[in-house]
Amino acid sequence: MNTFGVRLRLSTFGESHGEAIGGILDGFPAGLKIDRKLLKQEMTRRQGGRNLYSTQRKEDDIVEILSGVFDDATLGTPIGFIIKNNNTKSNHYDNIKDIFRPGHADITYYNKYGIYDYRGGGRASARESAIRVAGGAFAKMLLREFNIQVQSGILSIGNIECKDIDFNNALKSEIYSLDKNIEKLQKQEILKHKNNHDSIGGVALLKASNVPKGLGEGLYYKLDSAIGSILGLNGVKAVEIGSGVESSKKTGKENNDEIDTNGFLTNNAGGMLGGISNGEEIIIKLHFKPTPSIFIPQKSIDKNNKETICHIKGRHDPCIAIRGSVVGESMLSLILADMLLLNASSTIQSLKKIYA
Amino acid sequence: MNTFGVRLRLSTFGESHGEAIGGILDGFPAGLKIDRKLLKQEMTRRQGGRNLYSTQRKEDDIVEILSGVFDDATLGTPIGFIIKNNNTKSNHYDNIKDIFRPGHADITYYNKYGIYDYRGGGRASARESAIRVAGGAFAKMLLREFNIQVQSGILSIGNIECKDIDFNNALKSEIYSLDKNIEKLQKQEILKHKNNHDSIGGVALLKASNVPKGLGEGLYYKLDSAIGSILGLNGVKAVEIGSGVESSKKTGKENNDEIDTNGFLTNNAGGMLGGISNGEEIIIKLHFKPTPSIFIPQKSIDKNNKETICHIKGRHDPCIAIRGSVVGESMLSLILADMLLLNASSTIQSLKKIYA
Amino acid sequence: MNTFGVRLRLSTFGESHGEAIGGILDGFPAGLKIDRKLLKQEMTRRQGGRNLYSTQRKEDDIVEILSGVFDDATLGTPIGFIIKNNNTKSNHYDNIKDIFRPGHADITYYNKYGIYDYRGGGRASARESAIRVAGGAFAKMLLREFNIQVQSGILSIGNIECKDIDFNNALKSEIYSLDKNIEKLQKQEILKHKNNHDSIGGVALLKASNVPKGLGEGLYYKLDSAIGSILGLNGVKAVEIGSGVESSKKTGKENNDEIDTNGFLTNNAGGMLGGISNGEEIIIKLHFKPTPSIFIPQKSIDKNNKETICHIKGRHDPCIAIRGSVVGESMLSLILADMLLLNASSTIQSLKKIYA
Amino acid sequence: MNTFGVRLRLSTFGESHGEAIGGILDGFPAGLKIDRKLLKQEMTRRQGGRNLYSTQRKEDDIVEILSGVFDDATLGTPIGFIIKNNNTKSNHYDNIKDIFRPGHADITYYNKYGIYDYRGGGRASARESAIRVAGGAFAKMLLREFNIQVQSGILSIGNIECKDIDFNNALKSEIYSLDKNIEKLQKQEILKHKNNHDSIGGVALLKASNVPKGLGEGLYYKLDSAIGSILGLNGVKAVEIGSGVESSKKTGKENNDEIDTNGFLTNNAGGMLGGISNGEEIIIKLHFKPTPSIFIPQKSIDKNNKETICHIKGRHDPCIAIRGSVVGESMLSLILADMLLLNASSTIQSLKKIYA
Repeated sequence: MNTFGVRLRLSTFGESHGEAIGGILDGFPAGLKIDRKLLKQEMTRRQGGRNLYSTQRKEDDIVEILSGVFDDATLGTPIGFIIKNNNTKSNHYDNIKDIFRPGHADITYYNKYGIYDYRGGGRASARESAIRVAGGAFAKMLLREFNIQVQSGILSIGNIECKDIDFNNALKSEIYSLDKNIEKLQKQEILKHKNNHDSIGGVALLKASNVPKGLGEGLYYKLDSAIGSILGLNGVKAVEIGSGVESSKKTGKENNDEIDTNGFLTNNAGGMLGGISNGEEIIIKLHFKPTPSIFIPQKSIDKNNKETICHIKGRHDPCIAIRGSVVGESMLSLILADMLLLNASSTIQSLKKIYA
Repeated sequence: MNTFGVRLRLSTFGESHGEAIGGILDGFPAGLKIDRKLLKQEMTRRQGGRNLYSTQRKEDDIVEILSGVFDDATLGTPIGFIIKNNNTKSNHYDNIKDIFRPGHADITYYNKYGIYDYRGGGRASARESAIRVAGGAFAKMLLREFNIQVQSGILSIGNIECKDIDFNNALKSEIYSLDKNIEKLQKQEILKHKNNHDSIGGVALLKASNVPKGLGEGLYYKLDSAIGSILGLNGVKAVEIGSGVESSKKTGKENNDEIDTNGFLTNNAGGMLGGISNGEEIIIKLHFKPTPSIFIPQKSIDKNNKETICHIKGRHDPCIAIRGSVVGESMLSLILADMLLLNASSTIQSLKKIYA
Repeated sequence: MNTFGVRLRLSTFGESHGEAIGGILDGFPAGLKIDRKLLKQEMTRRQGGRNLYSTQRKEDDIVEILSGVFDDATLGTPIGFIIKNNNTKSNHYDNIKDIFRPGHADITYYNKYGIYDYRGGGRASARESAIRVAGGAFAKMLLREFNIQVQSGILSIGNIECKDIDFNNALKSEIYSLDKNIEKLQKQEILKHKNNHDSIGGVALLKASNVPKGLGEGLYYKLDSAIGSILGLNGVKAVEIGSGVESSKKTGKENNDEIDTNGFLTNNAGGMLGGISNGEEIIIKLHFKPTPSIFIPQKSIDKNNKETICHIKGRHDPCIAIRGSVVGESMLSLILADMLLLNASSTIQSLKKIYA
Repeated sequence: MNTFGVRLRLSTFGESHGEAIGGILDGFPAGLKIDRKLLKQEMTRRQGGRNLYSTQRKEDDIVEILSGVFDDATLGTPIGFIIKNNNTKSNHYDNIKDIFRPGHADITYYNKYGIYDYRGGGRASARESAIRVAGGAFAKMLLREFNIQVQSGILSIGNIECKDIDFNNALKSEIYSLDKNIEKLQKQEILKHKNNHDSIGGVALLKASNVPKGLGEGLYYKLDSAIGSILGLNGVKAVEIGSGVESSKKTGKENNDEIDTNGFLTNNAGGMLGGISNGEEIIIKLHFKPTPSIFIPQKSIDKNNKETICHIKGRHDPCIAIRGSVVGESMLSLILADMLLLNASSTIQSLKKIYA
């Protein structure tokens, strides 16, 4: 349940303000020289910049690799790793430790389990996504061996949407914006809501390039089915593939991607047919809700079912889509790596290449 | 891979024009009197009406239960069942047996496996969804014991969207429309495209009522994560929960659902927080692409990578969202039933109720 | 739960006297020409001879393949198949339908589920093993492509043990005996107990030859761990690998297999080290209890917890080890095929052979 | 693959001489006060006494719980924990870092993965079993709530077998012997082989008492099937349930357990029928091979396939069965806890007790 993937499996643990969070990446092939710089870089990207548009909680987020790697090469054994929780200010939560924060999982965890760690969202905190990004970094090292590239960026903040999509801009932008001409407006949008003690939603765009044809398994682990599970990522309330929502307004003639010897003439399908990659770019949109932690007083109840007003303190992103885009990218990387491994045994022909 | 669910698991097999399709429903609790009438009714709903808005391929779709049921009560053992494929007109596919149909999985299956059953889409056909609906009917029998109700209907056809949502209207409508005042326009929209030898997309709305608080498991099998996997259902290109796409345009203040002693004041969350049901209605939108099988000639290639024109024959739905809505409803039922079983062992307290 | 294997997964359903039993074999690679003769031959072997040493219940055991195969080649999609239950004489069970048969699962199924199909053991019947053998036959077709051979035979009946092991004799022997000189004594042993209305235990020996080095996965799906799960096969009460029970009486010096450039000097390990195949023959022993269905009256209770005498009728094997050996062989075949598929993605080097 | 269990899942990582080993226990119910003393006690038992009969490698084996526990109560979230590897003397392995030790997994890991951590057996080391024991301690805390008790001890060392079985003696004995009158002979046996620079095999007996009726799931996750997987535990070469090996020599009349209103008259079945617990004691025997690390020179080859003599140094148990018994007990505890959770949703009746 706290495990993601089938052949390449990431299991995670950890609460936001516990001693550490961590994970086990199982099924990773042996013999890859790991790239600690890439790992660090991905962790830094997930943190967001140390700027106005991001939370002020800054962990070191040092990934301590405890197993599965020997002389910097993967052993084929599970890669265990932890990240210590250093910068935890649990006292920020003292005043609301018995109050359910609107938009948060406090109330559902309490109702389900009869107990929850109120500090920073506990297990439900986006803090856990650091483990997904660490796992995703390993997945990227693997994908890179096969020239597969996964990228992400911010498509829109509230109603402010990018027009000219440039994934390189996302790497430079403080808010990971995909359009350098729109970026400034998007920043203004964020600050406007932040200054109102409020927050704002946004949309992340994910792209995978040079994906081999044939990735995607049986009907309940199709590529699109696996991608759909990203709907479980904190704050994501809608997932689209290819023409997505728009496809429901189109005709077959408009939406079908015709084919010639060079491939597909269009890419409404977003890189897959029947849940199997078709060699085109994989295109995903993730719609993030606004950060539920806002500094405006809100009606709520406490553990004793008494009505009260919830006043949130602490350090929160004004727009979770920004950092969320990197986590989504990591999850897509994990999915593609998993599919790559699974596909290795899809045909007698591929097996014969191995067991020659 | 061809298995759906964790504790309640539906495994399926079958190609569109093979001898039969079938499934195994494993983990279903013992001691439930099964309701064959409900099963039949669900199968009939999935077929769509014998009307202008639906395919003319009409199977009997008789579910033959082969195991797991004794004297009409469930045994706790796997429920095996098959549905014969009677009404298969494979000759409709003779002219395109070497040609990849745009918008279909022919090309990806061929590239992945080096072989595929070209007749009616083979494994990739929506024919398999009959097994999901049969499995969903069993799930509904279980959910009903706990007063949980799952419903569905058509929200929009192309750009024609319902306004006054009435799930009872969907039960009566030929196109499962949720709004009896809009239904006529939606029908016209379908026929317009059908008469153009084309097809049209649509959106299905799913609702689950009276869902107990607490359904949803660890971070990779949260309720929303599982629901997201419906993105793997044939033709679905986007999945939304609650305020979904709209939430990315809203502020935290607008989107958070405040709480009082009666529950939540609004339901932007769509019935879950942190991937765990919160007692409100679960609200899902599925965006279906238009039927890829259209009768307009399309550019394509054949197995020898030669360019050609694809002329599709046969019997096809002008709008797959209609019948797809019932399949989505079945999948949501399966998910909720699975979550209900899993949640039974979530706390020491609940275990003590059983092992008293 | 009713699924066996990880990458190659056999899910089964069916009660002994229901309409049919069946299975889904998922994950089987595409592109293999199937061998229906081999399939039939394995089914026949499982039935045992139509002789004195075997049950008189003789099903046709025709495996109806419903999917996953097209023009006799595997599609890579799930292989669904059923076997009808024709020769069911449920009336043999009428007199004991409320009485728990000693040595049988009637009582535990009833206590667990509150209901059970009393006819022929229902789900707990060895009848289900026909599906394992059908699945095993597919596994054998796959293993054969890589020159891997799996064999079995009877090592001992009661205290009568074979000395000169010859797997070819098992193919000719009415009781699958591994030693043509001991066979006669073993037959006498069986008939002695049969004539006493009793039954007798036995031991099956399994061997896999030419197994590639490297099969076996992480610590909880090691080759020996998977083989150990055969302890769940009906009637098996002990499983040994290599020197097995004897190894607990030996010293390290005696038990270690020294190594030279030709391989191992001995094979106490039974073909694996650390749960990974080492290139030597895999050697397994399965200890079967005597058939619990005997025609001697036995003390028991009924569903109302009233003491009674249980008189068993019907057609039963005097020694289940005989037919059980074939099922064990099938399970070992399924395990090895699964491990072969999983191992395909164990190293970067093997992946590069595929995605070149 | 490195995960054990279905509903209660223990995933582990770690090499013998890496920085740490660790695990994630997922699916543990919320609301249990954890017993750190019991945890510590189990870890100490696994270490064996600081005596002549056990390895001199003595780790602190402090289990650092990193998540899943709040104010000493379980949260229902994954319990992550690590154990640091402190007392690693990797230099003991310098002389054999390119030589495959007979009876060890060096050679198979190298052949499978093309790389391995030669220090202390790496992933294949019994060091990982510390994580199983930690997980088992949590399982025991859970089982205790339902009065289920799991025990173990040494039944035989080489040919020296206990007669009067007393599990309390095992708790006091330096070698966990089950018979205080035989213990001395068993110790002498160990020392004899130790003084010869050799090692000796042994048999552990496991017992579970007060197990509720009804534990055990579908045909491939029956109680006996799950127990069989303990065959994958380091050094175990045979697993028996109940009368085990002996049952293959008995008649049905001798082996069947007759029933009266007090339960079963005998317990040849070892506590289960059809893979479901029957309310009697669960009785398991684990046959351990002798420690493969012996100080007698042995023939072997190195990574370059050159013949050589292997001289082993370091600190090794003269008989791994002793400490192995505790690990087997832990695994049985994990299995029973898993089965307890799974069984909670077996019937409509039990579900109704929860969702009343």
